[in-house]
Amino acid sequence: MVARTRFDADPCPVARSVNAIGDWWSLLIVRDAFDGSRRFGEFHRSLGIAKNILTTRLRALEKAGVLRGEPAREGGSHREYLLTDKGRALFPVIVALRQWGEEQCFTPGEDHSRLLDRRTGHPLRPLRIEAADGRPVEPEDTVVEKVRETGAAG
Amino acid sequence: MVARTRFDADPCPVARSVNAIGDWWSLLIVRDAFDGSRRFGEFHRSLGIAKNILTTRLRALEKAGVLRGEPAREGGSHREYLLTDKGRALFPVIVALRQWGEEQCFTPGEDHSRLLDRRTGHPLRPLRIEAADGRPVEPEDTVVEKVRETGAAG
Repeated sequence: MVARTRFDADPCPVARSVNAIGDWWSLLIVRDAFDGSRRFGEFHRSLGIAKNILTTRLRALEKAGVLRGEPAREGGSHREYLLTDKGRALFPVIVALRQWGEEQCFTPGEDHSRLLDRRTGHPLRPLRIEAADGRPVEPEDTVVEKVRETGAAG
Repeated sequence: MVARTRFDADPCPVARSVNAIGDWWSLLIVRDAFDGSRRFGEFHRSLGIAKNILTTRLRALEKAGVLRGEPAREGGSHREYLLTDKGRALFPVIVALRQWGEEQCFTPGEDHSRLLDRRTGHPLRPLRIEAADGRPVEPEDTVVEKVRETGAAG
């Protein structure tokens, strides 16, 4: 696992992101939140991880401002975890991982879950990397502009 | 860290992806490969991680088919690590993490590296999640269609 303090001040937004998200468990918690999970028990059933691991990940996601914990609306002792605006902004990350997984990580014919457009029932369009003017760009068409103060990669 | 075998057969492409990528170090290695790093020493300088950790991550990325190790073209004992097509297909994942980090993980005015269109020098367009017909979709406009055999979340 990444030593979390290492990237706190990293000038690379990719490193900052992975630092803020935490670990893969945290990202799968975010995935489940997009899929409608709100309660500890829902995340626990979905992920099948130890409760203490889930607890620490939920707290870290709250601290990072990705989830917001609040008392369940119907009362009782339940606590609900909702995506903040910052958390909702992770949707493209989840979609990008999903599309890569669909394309690269299954054998032909193997069943997998799919993210569908609710209105039409069709899968979403594959993500496209575009220049500001809408031209599609390949990795080679891009360059990382580094900042001065460190030697860290972009 | 995620127990890697857990998601080998997961029907969710997000889980398969994180399983195939490995951990955050692995993803930052992939980032550096997009930025032009090829040699062990280049990854090592950029990431500042222990050599044994870098070695195991490079091997895992080779095994996952994301990187391809081969002798350096100019000869010598160097080995170079190049992105495979499967690895190159991770570009949207890196871009999505980068854009989220830029937007959410820096204080105003704080310097960060930027991914620029080589031709114009401008930043790329923010990723848009679109339906098959090009309509922009929000998370609420989507639904995960699960597969039958497990109770795992999509």
